[in-house]
Amino acid sequence: MSESEKPKGHTLSKDKVLTNGGNNVSSNPSDEMTEKFDLATVYVSDAQYNRNIFFDTSPQAVRLYLLYNHWFMQTLVYAFIIVNLALALFEDPAVVPLPIWATSTIEIICLSAFSVRMVHYAKVIPKDKFWKDPKNICIIVVVTLSFIDLTIYGALKSTGYFAIRWSRVLRPLLLVNVTEGRQLRRAFRSIRNALPQISYVFLLFMFSVLVFSLVALKLFGKRGLLTIDGSPYFTDYLDIVFDLYVLVTTANSPDVMMPAYNYSVFFTIFFILYIIINTYTFMSFFLAVVYSNYKKHLKEEVRQLVKARRFKMCRAFSLLHEARGEGGEPVVTQTKWNHLVKLVKPNINIAHRELLWSVLDDQNKGHIGKFAFVQLADLLSIQVITVKSQPHPIQICFPSMYNSPVSRFIRYVVHQRMFVYVYDLIILVNAVFIGLDEENPVVSNAEWGFLALYMLEIILKLYATEPRAFFARHHFWNWFDTIIIVSALFGTIINSALKHSGGYTSRQILDIIFILRVLRLIRLVDSIKRFRAIINILIKIGPTILTFGQLIVVVYYIFAMVGMELFKGKVQFFEPNSTSPDQEYCGNPLLKGTTFAKLNYCKNNFNNVVSSFIVLLELTVVNQWHVLTSGFTAVTHISARIFFVLFHIVVVIIIINIFVAFILEAFLVEYTIDKSDLQTSLEKKIEELELNVQQDGVDTGLVDAMESNDNELGPSEAGKQKPSLMFKIASRRSRTVDGLLQRMFETDIRPEDFVEEEEPENINFSNPVFDSV
Amino acid sequence: MSESEKPKGHTLSKDKVLTNGGNNVSSNPSDEMTEKFDLATVYVSDAQYNRNIFFDTSPQAVRLYLLYNHWFMQTLVYAFIIVNLALALFEDPAVVPLPIWATSTIEIICLSAFSVRMVHYAKVIPKDKFWKDPKNICIIVVVTLSFIDLTIYGALKSTGYFAIRWSRVLRPLLLVNVTEGRQLRRAFRSIRNALPQISYVFLLFMFSVLVFSLVALKLFGKRGLLTIDGSPYFTDYLDIVFDLYVLVTTANSPDVMMPAYNYSVFFTIFFILYIIINTYTFMSFFLAVVYSNYKKHLKEEVRQLVKARRFKMCRAFSLLHEARGEGGEPVVTQTKWNHLVKLVKPNINIAHRELLWSVLDDQNKGHIGKFAFVQLADLLSIQVITVKSQPHPIQICFPSMYNSPVSRFIRYVVHQRMFVYVYDLIILVNAVFIGLDEENPVVSNAEWGFLALYMLEIILKLYATEPRAFFARHHFWNWFDTIIIVSALFGTIINSALKHSGGYTSRQILDIIFILRVLRLIRLVDSIKRFRAIINILIKIGPTILTFGQLIVVVYYIFAMVGMELFKGKVQFFEPNSTSPDQEYCGNPLLKGTTFAKLNYCKNNFNNVVSSFIVLLELTVVNQWHVLTSGFTAVTHISARIFFVLFHIVVVIIIINIFVAFILEAFLVEYTIDKSDLQTSLEKKIEELELNVQQDGVDTGLVDAMESNDNELGPSEAGKQKPSLMFKIASRRSRTVDGLLQRMFETDIRPEDFVEEEEPENINFSNPVFDSV
Repeated sequence: MSESEKPKGHTLSKDKVLTNGGNNVSSNPSDEMTEKFDLATVYVSDAQYNRNIFFDTSPQAVRLYLLYNHWFMQTLVYAFIIVNLALALFEDPAVVPLPIWATSTIEIICLSAFSVRMVHYAKVIPKDKFWKDPKNICIIVVVTLSFIDLTIYGALKSTGYFAIRWSRVLRPLLLVNVTEGRQLRRAFRSIRNALPQISYVFLLFMFSVLVFSLVALKLFGKRGLLTIDGSPYFTDYLDIVFDLYVLVTTANSPDVMMPAYNYSVFFTIFFILYIIINTYTFMSFFLAVVYSNYKKHLKEEVRQLVKARRFKMCRAFSLLHEARGEGGEPVVTQTKWNHLVKLVKPNINIAHRELLWSVLDDQNKGHIGKFAFVQLADLLSIQVITVKSQPHPIQICFPSMYNSPVSRFIRYVVHQRMFVYVYDLIILVNAVFIGLDEENPVVSNAEWGFLALYMLEIILKLYATEPRAFFARHHFWNWFDTIIIVSALFGTIINSALKHSGGYTSRQILDIIFILRVLRLIRLVDSIKRFRAIINILIKIGPTILTFGQLIVVVYYIFAMVGMELFKGKVQFFEPNSTSPDQEYCGNPLLKGTTFAKLNYCKNNFNNVVSSFIVLLELTVVNQWHVLTSGFTAVTHISARIFFVLFHIVVVIIIINIFVAFILEAFLVEYTIDKSDLQTSLEKKIEELELNVQQDGVDTGLVDAMESNDNELGPSEAGKQKPSLMFKIASRRSRTVDGLLQRMFETDIRPEDFVEEEEPENINFSNPVFDSV
Repeated sequence: MSESEKPKGHTLSKDKVLTNGGNNVSSNPSDEMTEKFDLATVYVSDAQYNRNIFFDTSPQAVRLYLLYNHWFMQTLVYAFIIVNLALALFEDPAVVPLPIWATSTIEIICLSAFSVRMVHYAKVIPKDKFWKDPKNICIIVVVTLSFIDLTIYGALKSTGYFAIRWSRVLRPLLLVNVTEGRQLRRAFRSIRNALPQISYVFLLFMFSVLVFSLVALKLFGKRGLLTIDGSPYFTDYLDIVFDLYVLVTTANSPDVMMPAYNYSVFFTIFFILYIIINTYTFMSFFLAVVYSNYKKHLKEEVRQLVKARRFKMCRAFSLLHEARGEGGEPVVTQTKWNHLVKLVKPNINIAHRELLWSVLDDQNKGHIGKFAFVQLADLLSIQVITVKSQPHPIQICFPSMYNSPVSRFIRYVVHQRMFVYVYDLIILVNAVFIGLDEENPVVSNAEWGFLALYMLEIILKLYATEPRAFFARHHFWNWFDTIIIVSALFGTIINSALKHSGGYTSRQILDIIFILRVLRLIRLVDSIKRFRAIINILIKIGPTILTFGQLIVVVYYIFAMVGMELFKGKVQFFEPNSTSPDQEYCGNPLLKGTTFAKLNYCKNNFNNVVSSFIVLLELTVVNQWHVLTSGFTAVTHISARIFFVLFHIVVVIIIINIFVAFILEAFLVEYTIDKSDLQTSLEKKIEELELNVQQDGVDTGLVDAMESNDNELGPSEAGKQKPSLMFKIASRRSRTVDGLLQRMFETDIRPEDFVEEEEPENINFSNPVFDSV
């Protein structure tokens, strides 16, 4: 807890209060004021980032809390979690084996780090709140169990006994229960909430499968039919149930029907009915149940989120307000507000702050009431980009050259639509060349030509646009282009240097160059408006897909750990050039003659965590699910099916449907609702204000169309001096998941919610149920 | 057009007007009145059944129109359509070959019937409207083309030339464009409306597939990898595109990855990315696009439907109204209204009619205004069941016996929950017995015991409940039970008689008996409340699934016709006991060694319409899609892939998603919205009214819980005399699709829509775009 680790905001506050001198008060009240500002800052930034931690409000605890939320600490925690999870790569069965003492030491370090973090957290929040929060309990239990397991395992191993590292299954729970894992916990909660309804549908579905199986047993069992590999067809009830369950995954689709179909065409009626009812209708039902629950519970959660956020802002307000308005109603002055914003966002520039103030204080009173103050958190989460319009560096150095007719013509051409079309055409031609054989000298020489053309494009654009504007943070495609082209250039140069020097070509470098070349083609997408709209949705869904990525990792990790204990070493992979006779049946005689071995699935095994993850992915995609399952049951026991069926239920029926549900909802919001409805009222306000300012001729304006390549400034206009400072609401691409969700349900959140917050003391602030699994 | 074919309603009207004598007017005005009533009747029933036909209002045309809408005519048209479609069973390649002259004669009869129907339709509606309606044009074109094709085919065949019956592809269009195919046309329209957006997503998706293929070519093409069957891996660009397209269907899921995975684990990254982006994200996008479009357009259509319905009711009102209200506002008197209802629904009973009137005329004025009148169509579409409470027949014959303590105790027991539980247990035990080997004498004898128990249950229930109430139309499970048990009893008796007489057991009879036995188990579902809720949704979706069934038939039929021309006879199926050496490769040497032949898929061929449909179903389920595709390309040409890819796009990407979209929407409406919100305001009115009437001690009441088996009437209550007449809104199970849809969007339909209809003349009534594909 050295001074250097303290968050920026806090260090800054002291300087400002001392130098600002708005209220010239004595040292003691000033300290008190500083503390108040510190606390208010914490409330505002908690509201902004949707943190729901009921921390102690003593100055000491607030400082600890600020440290707790410092980005460095958060990154460190995630680093330890990743290291802890990654240990599976080095523990037996390992990808890269490390001695037990090494992995154990690393694990002890990680666990200690989590413990320290827990202690830190315990100091920040009141004791009773700490022990009521299930996520703390969960972390403590996991850490304790891991220590116990580690001790037992070490003791057993050192004495030569057989031991299982069972606590590895618990590791992903740390990822879920860490304070920062809000999104992930929310996803788990939405699954948990949907579980009762899913289970009713699942039971009915299983009833249907069981009844169909009984019919199948009675219809086909006595007919002496044979499957393709000569085994009796549909004679054992449990096997039928399993086969028909597999049919729901469609993995054995026509094969399971063929013997009956070959016998009589009328038997297909049974399978058609089964497919319509179970494969289509019930599977759609699962999606429907998950979707409807997801929607319902998410709405409630976001409502609570908004409520909590407003409550925190009210708290901050009550710290800073003073009675000044008409009728003595509490208000916050602009001075205080400015100071607060500086503390919350130290690197915000003055113009941006002024803009925010003018949005809140639209009648120019110099102070704002509670209602306006509360909106600050929402305002801060809107990314407003301040673009300083500067003259081009070349214009400064060589003004006459830059303004010459030739130069102006070049700049005019670059901004034309035609310029984009020409380069789209070049990309298309390039695509054909990429497809051709690169060992042909014409093709490999053409690559230099294409590289030169692309470099020329970037240079021209840099000439026509101010470089800092060109490389602004939100100009995704400019960055993309430049990085891809420059890397490809370097790669190609290195490659040809290697070739010329020693005749040796690294396959890896070539692979990278090829991929870079193909990636250039992607830019075509951005030229077509309709595609851009779809891509925007994709990018916006991005952060949520990351949450689902974590969700999948948690579930996969647990199944991989269990799978590795069950199946490790049972299926062996032999390198393709190996001459071992065992290769044919994956090194396990039990697999002789199975489809698993015939299809050469030997590398689909649970021998280390990487291959386990790949097998689990294949099981998620579901095709050949039964082949993989039958392979692993062949080498162990028929009851191993339970593992695979469980995985199917959890991942395919529940998690994939949650994923689809999110995409559905996000798509419905993005695509069908009118664009203007999507803007929050605050965004509208900002835009209106900008427009007004622009009309008044002041130095702010909303001009920037570079991003969409739609800029059609004529040469005369381009020559005019642009306003020196421009505001722009950041591209809708860079929204957070929370923002998207909130907007999804904004219309449904009643305004009464705000009224309730008028009496902050009546509300139970900490909602542990809300912020824990 | 004989007198006997005239619809009931019309014949009735004459009698009534003559005998009723409400308005004693001379013959001529009476005729005029009759005509007015006829026209009003047509408007009301058009509104009730959502018919949107702009018919001529001359008395002659109205009579023709009534004939046109007669159920017999409509059934006849569908019969001809089915016969026409079924011709595919008998035409070459046929399931049951018939000579060309026979099929041609039947087809000519069908086509003539359609022509007559067209002429009839042309006489009903004005000429300009007739020729503006695309669905009429479509039918005329199809019929003409069919005649031409038939002539050419006949001529060519008789002279021994090769000929194709290409017009068979057009046959399903008749099903779509027939006047009654509203639901089907709506489904097609919603597909057509979604097409632009689907195609944008599809193009982007194809772009992604193409880019990934290029990367695959560059990464794997030069590495000399081999697939499992020894062919080069990922060397030809077009093959890669196809393979990766197949991966989107997941049909070749781990197999396509295995060679690269065996070479290096890092290559799996390529496939994982591909699966996440294309298989999961894009496929979810397709669902999202279809769903959002479906929702949007359906809303608009239903809005128009409601508008048209209200407009028609306004028309009817303007025919019957007279100025009598305060301020001389137009009203319809109860006498006229009664007469109209009698004409529209001839078999409605007086009590039901009185109920409807009291719902509309809630202030007992004796006349209703336009607003109330318009609601008649909605009211009539609510199925109100009138249950006449009658004493049990046994009670009438043997009152003392029926009221004896033993009899009362029996009736008490039957109505207990325990009775249901006991029988649920019996069913469970029965399920175990069904699973056992039926050749065991204990098991086969036990079957008699179970049959006796089930018969006893039915008899007891019939004893405790009035038989007519027990077999009321809406008591689905009573009907189900009785039919299943009685059929099983007969089947078992016949079977054992056969066995005892000649020792011969028919396998078919046994199959039926087994299925009947298993079907008995289904009743268990109804005992569990949660399951019942899900089943109710399933049943409610039923009619829509039928519409989708038609949709699927139309698409399948077209693809089957094309497929048969392309692939007929190329793949041969040999009976399993055949000894032909060709059996191994389905009679086509080109299939030697292919997976298609190895998996014995020979019966999956296009040799007749039935097997074509089954192959298409297998292609819809998608698994082994690539095996089927490669089989058919092997026997024809690589370009045959186009046929299969097209089928995949149309059926899997579009139609299945429409199906899922409907289930999603129906589920969301049924499951998440509060039950009370689901009731239309009219239903609420009816229930309130019933409640009032019941409280007033009048002879109507809302009592009936038999259906849900929840009846817990004590013996004392059961003994009381029940009200002799009861009303009940029919089970929510028996709703029409239109009703469901309308309710889905009822809240979104603005009340202003009604106001607009106040000036019926201003509205363009016939919306041909709306009622045609």
